[in-house]
Amino acid sequence: VTKKIGILGGGQLGRMFLQAAYNYPFVYHVMDKAKAPCSQLCEHFYEGDFQDYHAIMDFAMPLDIIGIEIEHVNTDALQALEDNGKTVIPSPKALAIIKDKGLQKQFYSQHAIKTPEYYLVADKGEIDIQRFGFPFVQKQRTGGYDGKGVQIIRDTSDLHRLWNIASVIERFTPIAKEIAVLVALDQQGHMRTYPSVEMVFDADLNLLDYLFSPADISVAQAQCADRLARQVAKSFACPGLFAVELFIDQQGELWVNEVAPRVHNSGHHTIEAAYTSQFEQMVRILSGLSLGKTGLHHAAAMINLLGAEHQGVAVVKGIDELSMLDKTYLHWYGKTTTSPGRKMGHVTLLGERQMLAQKIATIKSAVHVVSF
Amino acid sequence: VTKKIGILGGGQLGRMFLQAAYNYPFVYHVMDKAKAPCSQLCEHFYEGDFQDYHAIMDFAMPLDIIGIEIEHVNTDALQALEDNGKTVIPSPKALAIIKDKGLQKQFYSQHAIKTPEYYLVADKGEIDIQRFGFPFVQKQRTGGYDGKGVQIIRDTSDLHRLWNIASVIERFTPIAKEIAVLVALDQQGHMRTYPSVEMVFDADLNLLDYLFSPADISVAQAQCADRLARQVAKSFACPGLFAVELFIDQQGELWVNEVAPRVHNSGHHTIEAAYTSQFEQMVRILSGLSLGKTGLHHAAAMINLLGAEHQGVAVVKGIDELSMLDKTYLHWYGKTTTSPGRKMGHVTLLGERQMLAQKIATIKSAVHVVSF
Repeated sequence: VTKKIGILGGGQLGRMFLQAAYNYPFVYHVMDKAKAPCSQLCEHFYEGDFQDYHAIMDFAMPLDIIGIEIEHVNTDALQALEDNGKTVIPSPKALAIIKDKGLQKQFYSQHAIKTPEYYLVADKGEIDIQRFGFPFVQKQRTGGYDGKGVQIIRDTSDLHRLWNIASVIERFTPIAKEIAVLVALDQQGHMRTYPSVEMVFDADLNLLDYLFSPADISVAQAQCADRLARQVAKSFACPGLFAVELFIDQQGELWVNEVAPRVHNSGHHTIEAAYTSQFEQMVRILSGLSLGKTGLHHAAAMINLLGAEHQGVAVVKGIDELSMLDKTYLHWYGKTTTSPGRKMGHVTLLGERQMLAQKIATIKSAVHVVSF
Repeated sequence: VTKKIGILGGGQLGRMFLQAAYNYPFVYHVMDKAKAPCSQLCEHFYEGDFQDYHAIMDFAMPLDIIGIEIEHVNTDALQALEDNGKTVIPSPKALAIIKDKGLQKQFYSQHAIKTPEYYLVADKGEIDIQRFGFPFVQKQRTGGYDGKGVQIIRDTSDLHRLWNIASVIERFTPIAKEIAVLVALDQQGHMRTYPSVEMVFDADLNLLDYLFSPADISVAQAQCADRLARQVAKSFACPGLFAVELFIDQQGELWVNEVAPRVHNSGHHTIEAAYTSQFEQMVRILSGLSLGKTGLHHAAAMINLLGAEHQGVAVVKGIDELSMLDKTYLHWYGKTTTSPGRKMGHVTLLGERQMLAQKIATIKSAVHVVSF
């Protein structure tokens, strides 16, 4: 009998998963809001709220294997599904820890994983400004995504911006580089890592702007990043994909920032640049197959296409120019409406880093996601 | 406004087109029989007969651009759509010639394209056995596909097998190799070719069994194949993809066998091995964008997964073993039922030819499409 795989969340990650998954002989079900990017290419798309216990149970009980493409799902429902004998990846326990940044930081402490110093507060009244001095970082424990829910408090004039919400308060790390390592763990316990990724963030939006892979770091740093990422993934003791984000500080030291237990924006270049894309890897992990080869056959860059200042029906300008660039791959996410900073698509470029800087500039000036 | 692209035919070629096309900001409509492979991943899937004039008109009049994934469509309808200002690729005129193998051969004669000697017959009574002697080839003028509609008449004991149908009677070419060259022509008139492909046929089924690319032929032969393929495509004077199949005879001479004006089984390896897959190229051509780079970044092989002797609900055995092979890519077509010799999927392998022979043998012994 054909395995039925269900995915909670139907955004661009689910969409790219489906594009790869249709190469395999399984049946795919997805649940998210109406018109989510997956709805255009999924025969079994269900409208529903993945934070709602009953909606998840109704969706997933007829299925065999449950995966996610977003952390903010109801983990009680996932636990109940696991208790009912379903395969749930990642494990509901791991997900419950990761989706609460407070529990995630405590998990790092418990497992002696090197992460910036922190303490937890229930509200802003509990913040001890003296403890780390300025600047410091406030992260909402739950619900943040795509640059939302994290802020840097630079001095007393920023204090009025503090959120009165359960938060992680973190010592500010003077960052030289932000990198990521994607770890894949199959159901048999095998582990493979992808080459490191160097991420450049949009300072205003606090969102990934573009990335290069492999990262331009020393061999020792790459080995350290790989070791830390494996340590994080292994500590969760469950199959899945783990995108481990790390800081390299100005002394060259590496720190684990956070982890996403799923396919991730930092792995989009693997579609064209790696022997096995992160999305195909997810199919293999969910279905119990062996992991695919994680090496890159080309160095690559990836640029996010973020919505410009417009709000409304999305239009992408400049794809004619884009189509004239060799080894350049558009990925449009099929979102009907755009808003400022919304992730609307991405572009992957193959080639050596020095060659790609000019191309990134060309794409940034040619391609725009706007509305009328 | 978003361009609406319609595809006639919803089989595996349409399915792989859609997988690539969802990376672009267009809307896709497909028409074929219920449960065709595209139906699982196409929001705008229409049940209908692509040989029916009115069905095509109803389907395509609200759309902007019409493409095909099979030749056997009603070309009168396509002509009417073109007359109504729709973009139709390939041109209805080219398609009308190609889908009739008699007209196709006459077209080669008119354009001085080197093709095996032939004559046309309205029925078997018109066949002149003396003319080419034995063996000779009979090809049905219309309706043949996937190895059906072509037979070799080896001696008088085969004469009872002659079809009493309008046919091309062709001089038999003693073949050393069968190769193919895929040509891409965009709406601006630019032309690019993919590296040559060497095809190995299943003698019983008269179907492509596996292929290698690039073909193991001399530089002069590769240049000649490229030149002939360009000559064929250019003669049709319309945008599109043209898969030109050629014979190399035992004297090393090249002959054009036939052409398919669409994505083709001989181009499936381009998904993983080329900088631009044939399916992405089709999106670019239909939408008026520039052609992508056609070079291969890896040598490759491709094996068709054909239905075994069973008939019924399809099950694929051996994908666990398959997932353990590096640089090996499954493409399952999502067909619910299998029958002997039916194309159910394919597997692409990256690597040098000498390395791949063993892998092909492993896959042939491990992977089987059966039923219960």
